Amino acid sequence: MARQTACVTTGLLGSNDLIGGKTVAGQMMSLAALVAARETGKAKPDQMVALARDATRRRDPEIQAFCHLAGDPEVPTEGPLAGVAIGVKDIFDTFDMPTTYGSKIYQGYRPKTDASVVALARRRGATILGKTVTTEFAYFDAGPTVNPHDHAHTPGGSSSGSAAAVAAGMIPAAIGTQTGGSVIRPASFCGVAGYKPSYRLLPSTGMKHFAPSLDTVGLFAASITDVALFAHLLTGRPLNPEPVDPASTRIGIYFCGELESADPEMQAALERAAEAATAAGFELIAISEPDENARARKAHSTLQNYEAGMSCGPDLALYEDQMGEKLVATVKESLAIPPSVYDDARRAAKRGRGATRKLFDEVDILLTPSAPGAAPRGLAFTGDPRFNKLWTLMGTPTVNIPFFKAKSGLPLGIQAVARFGQDLQLLSVARALEQAFAEHS
Amino acid sequence: MARQTACVTTGLLGSNDLIGGKTVAGQMMSLAALVAARETGKAKPDQMVALARDATRRRDPEIQAFCHLAGDPEVPTEGPLAGVAIGVKDIFDTFDMPTTYGSKIYQGYRPKTDASVVALARRRGATILGKTVTTEFAYFDAGPTVNPHDHAHTPGGSSSGSAAAVAAGMIPAAIGTQTGGSVIRPASFCGVAGYKPSYRLLPSTGMKHFAPSLDTVGLFAASITDVALFAHLLTGRPLNPEPVDPASTRIGIYFCGELESADPEMQAALERAAEAATAAGFELIAISEPDENARARKAHSTLQNYEAGMSCGPDLALYEDQMGEKLVATVKESLAIPPSVYDDARRAAKRGRGATRKLFDEVDILLTPSAPGAAPRGLAFTGDPRFNKLWTLMGTPTVNIPFFKAKSGLPLGIQAVARFGQDLQLLSVARALEQAFAEHS
Repeated sequence: MARQTACVTTGLLGSNDLIGGKTVAGQMMSLAALVAARETGKAKPDQMVALARDATRRRDPEIQAFCHLAGDPEVPTEGPLAGVAIGVKDIFDTFDMPTTYGSKIYQGYRPKTDASVVALARRRGATILGKTVTTEFAYFDAGPTVNPHDHAHTPGGSSSGSAAAVAAGMIPAAIGTQTGGSVIRPASFCGVAGYKPSYRLLPSTGMKHFAPSLDTVGLFAASITDVALFAHLLTGRPLNPEPVDPASTRIGIYFCGELESADPEMQAALERAAEAATAAGFELIAISEPDENARARKAHSTLQNYEAGMSCGPDLALYEDQMGEKLVATVKESLAIPPSVYDDARRAAKRGRGATRKLFDEVDILLTPSAPGAAPRGLAFTGDPRFNKLWTLMGTPTVNIPFFKAKSGLPLGIQAVARFGQDLQLLSVARALEQAFAEHS
Repeated sequence: MARQTACVTTGLLGSNDLIGGKTVAGQMMSLAALVAARETGKAKPDQMVALARDATRRRDPEIQAFCHLAGDPEVPTEGPLAGVAIGVKDIFDTFDMPTTYGSKIYQGYRPKTDASVVALARRRGATILGKTVTTEFAYFDAGPTVNPHDHAHTPGGSSSGSAAAVAAGMIPAAIGTQTGGSVIRPASFCGVAGYKPSYRLLPSTGMKHFAPSLDTVGLFAASITDVALFAHLLTGRPLNPEPVDPASTRIGIYFCGELESADPEMQAALERAAEAATAAGFELIAISEPDENARARKAHSTLQNYEAGMSCGPDLALYEDQMGEKLVATVKESLAIPPSVYDDARRAAKRGRGATRKLFDEVDILLTPSAPGAAPRGLAFTGDPRFNKLWTLMGTPTVNIPFFKAKSGLPLGIQAVARFGQDLQLLSVARALEQAFAEHS
């Protein structure tokens, strides 16, 4: 059941070595390998971007990860991300490309300026290769993107195109957002590393907000090493994984009600993950979900939907006929949620944060499934965020570790969670686990 | 020194009774009186809006509170705010009016949709009379608005037009924002009630963000009664002031370093406020600022500016030549703040929140000056937010109680602060104090 999909490469431009480990979808690009090639003079920024453009031209007609491709983007030669071609979820404003938020309302809309994280990426030298498909307003009405591992299956959402473009080997890195499970779930379904940082580590200004207290900017790349490097180069923060001493790192397997209803294959993947971690010398602890966290998870929908009523109410008032069914239904219901119910949900979230802080006195990292199972068949349903939304609400950093696979060949991701602000520790342990999964399976 | 400016009226449309207490600038409109007139059938929504339009036509050429007036706005006849003409700070998106954010960059810009709070006001039946002047991006580069009490003085900023339009009796209510002191300070300078709710009580989506973790939507009206009623009718929350038992309400006078350097007239106003509160039967306590709060206040600028670098960096990259000097200088410096310095500031803020929670175990309400003194002379400098920014950072609700005046005739506001989420208590005690100031001075 478990096969290695992690992407570990070094190499020369011109050979195919810059493109990483094989997947059913072809080959993924390794950001670490690309940056190493640039730093050793083996690749120039414009060559690196050309590689991504060529791959995208070949593969995107089938995958439909991009909703807009930049014509002939200028390639900065300076900056830590020089030569790195990235995809930006079309929930972010871009001054030089149409910005639709996945919505008919905004067809052809051209913002005056960039979203904060887009401008940040440009300041660091990145080349925006194009806008990637998002579900409508990052909710559940899906776009045309298919899962690169099986085109009859959803890539997950709402960051559908960002996950699929990395998985299909078109680009080495992409930017998305998560309000429920919109980074970790598509990363799991597409077999890539997805990183949802601590709340506000990356700026969300200039995204189409759905629920501002939850909306979190996240990143995609082929492996943990790659996504951590992307985070490091994008932010200037020390996020490159460090060596981990397994003997002094406590890993908790997080037992919550949702686990019982997860697919047997996903349950088995979590067991395999635990076995591999134990074999690698980590201390494993079984952690039962505190009641406060179970209640906080339930409160997530109330919080999200109340805020979505506020955020999307203006569009509903003006453009209801151009909005998708699921979105219209949710926004209408949301506008009827009394403020007192929202306040109760905020209080439940606060109690959950207290309980979560205590959990992280007992363990360093929690492991859970990234999703209930592999990507569901069909494109209309982007999958269930029930393993993700608690951690979005808690603001804790999480990452999808891509490794395991279902019998069907579809990926099954494992989610690692750390204490708020402990992003470096999360990425360091996740990289060690990624290696442990490969070595012990 | 102390004269009554509070606005207490009832009356009939057609007489001038709907317009409230006299000020040097003329007369303010009482929202409570207007709504009461509508509810008793004495005024129709379109008449109420016509009153505001007429007053604005007469007074705004001098005051310049509005940067855009709606042509012939449709007046809803249903909803709790039917007939209530409001001004909206031009930092908020409006689909049917130009939205400039006080910036040359956005001259003529027309968003596709409304900001959340604008749509909320419309859903409740309000009529948006126009957009009110904001400093550029709600920072320190001032617009043309003058102080209605003395046209040679600043109205304060950044919500300059919203405060001045209410003070000059053009509209009964207005919407603004505060990131440092941009609601409380102009309210104090203009002699109106300004209410900065608990963080996220009002939705900020669709405003031009400056520092999202601080940006707070706030409200203006003639008196505490009026601003509380506006908040109640806008949100549906129970925010109408309730009777207060002074004997069981502990009021703390907040002694911080900033107090020593406040104008003697402002120090005297705070003393008079304390005397009036004592005379009204409140228990008064002297509260020394905890060290954690002093450090949190210092951290405010780092937090604000780091986030402003992210929020305004995109504009700087594209439109630097169209941005004001103060803004350009701040954004450039801000982009150089290391993430570790920002993280330290977030930790200082968190420790301040802990200390503030403990403070509110000892007292119910804190009183401080709303500003170091009366509105400074000149229009270029909008005044100092040093009495406000700590509370913006703490997320605690605050309100400017307009009552006292300097010898010059310019208003001196007293700021009341309550525990996070205790907005009703804040407004109830503030109304009782507003009455006490009038009775005991």
